[in-house]
Amino acid sequence: MIILVDQDGPLADFEKGFLDAWRTQFPNEHFVPLHQRRTFYVRDDYPKELRDKVESIYFAPRFYLNLPPVNGSLEALKMLVELGHDVRICTSPLSRYENCVLEKYQWVEKHFDRDFTKRIVLSKDKTIIRGKLLIDDKPVIEGGETAEWEHILYDCSYNQEVGNKKRLTWANWKDVLVF
Amino acid sequence: MIILVDQDGPLADFEKGFLDAWRTQFPNEHFVPLHQRRTFYVRDDYPKELRDKVESIYFAPRFYLNLPPVNGSLEALKMLVELGHDVRICTSPLSRYENCVLEKYQWVEKHFDRDFTKRIVLSKDKTIIRGKLLIDDKPVIEGGETAEWEHILYDCSYNQEVGNKKRLTWANWKDVLVF
Repeated sequence: MIILVDQDGPLADFEKGFLDAWRTQFPNEHFVPLHQRRTFYVRDDYPKELRDKVESIYFAPRFYLNLPPVNGSLEALKMLVELGHDVRICTSPLSRYENCVLEKYQWVEKHFDRDFTKRIVLSKDKTIIRGKLLIDDKPVIEGGETAEWEHILYDCSYNQEVGNKKRLTWANWKDVLVF
Repeated sequence: MIILVDQDGPLADFEKGFLDAWRTQFPNEHFVPLHQRRTFYVRDDYPKELRDKVESIYFAPRFYLNLPPVNGSLEALKMLVELGHDVRICTSPLSRYENCVLEKYQWVEKHFDRDFTKRIVLSKDKTIIRGKLLIDDKPVIEGGETAEWEHILYDCSYNQEVGNKKRLTWANWKDVLVF
C-alpha cells in the first residue's frame, strides 16, 4: 500500500523551527506560541507589517535542513516501512524554491539515510501523486486532479476546524491506520 | 489532459551537454559521437576505466543548469500549454542529488519562468505520477505501480531497439500526439 507522508508538519517540525528562530532573531517582536497557532501558513498568524521578517526566517539558508524531527515521526515511518508499506515522502516546495528544494533532500538523508531520499516526491500538486493515503497537516489539499488517496489529517492546532477527516499524530497512528 | 514530459533528454540536452564538457575537459580521451550513443546511461557507453571521469562531468556543479535546451522543445511545451493541456515536467534526480535537484528547478526558470517551476514533479519513481501520457527517452520505465500513462518514447539514438511504443521528436510531435 502506498502511503504518502507530507514532510513539513508531520515529519519536520516547521512550527517549532520557525518559532525558535523567530524568538532568537527577533526577540523583541510579537510572537505566537505554538498552541495558539490558528492558520495553516504561519505568516497569516502574524501582523502584516511583520511579513518580511516572518518570511526571512523560512527563506533563509539552512532553515529547512535544521528543522527538528517531530517526536515519534522517524520511528513511525521506519515501522511503516518494516510493515511492508510503500512509504513516500510527498512534499511541496516553496515557490521561492532556492534553499528548500535541496534541503528537503538533505533533511531526509540526515534523519534516515541516502537511500531513503529515493522515496521523496516533490510536487506543488499532490493530487497527481498516486497513493492509498496521504498524511498531511494542510486542511484542504487541492490540485489539478481528483485525488486517488484518502487525506488523513496530521493533527495540529491550526487545523482543528476541519471536521470531516480522520486525524492522527505519531502518538496514536497505530489506532487510526487500521490496515 | 495531463501530459508528463521528462526533463533530461526531451527538454534539456544532456547528451550534447555531456559530450561538449567531456571533449573540453578530457580532449585526449576516447569519446562517443552523439549518433553512436547506444546505451541509456552514457557511462555504459564508455570503458570502465573512464567511469570516474565520466561521472565527474555530470556530478559537477552547474552541469545541469547549463544544459542547452533541445531544439524546438521549449516552443512545443509552450504550445501544449496554449492548447489547454496540463503539462508537467516529470523528472528523476540522480541518487547523488546534491547539484541536480536545485539546478533542475533553475533550468526550468531560466528557459521558461518562475511560474513554470510549479509544473515540476521530482520523483525517482514515475509510475506513481498520474497522467495520460509520459514523453520520456528512457526505453523502459519501471516503478512501484502499474503506470496510468502511456509511455511515448522521445526518439534518440540509444533507444532505437524499443519497438512497441509510439515515438516522437519535437519536429514531428504534432503528427504523433493526436488529441
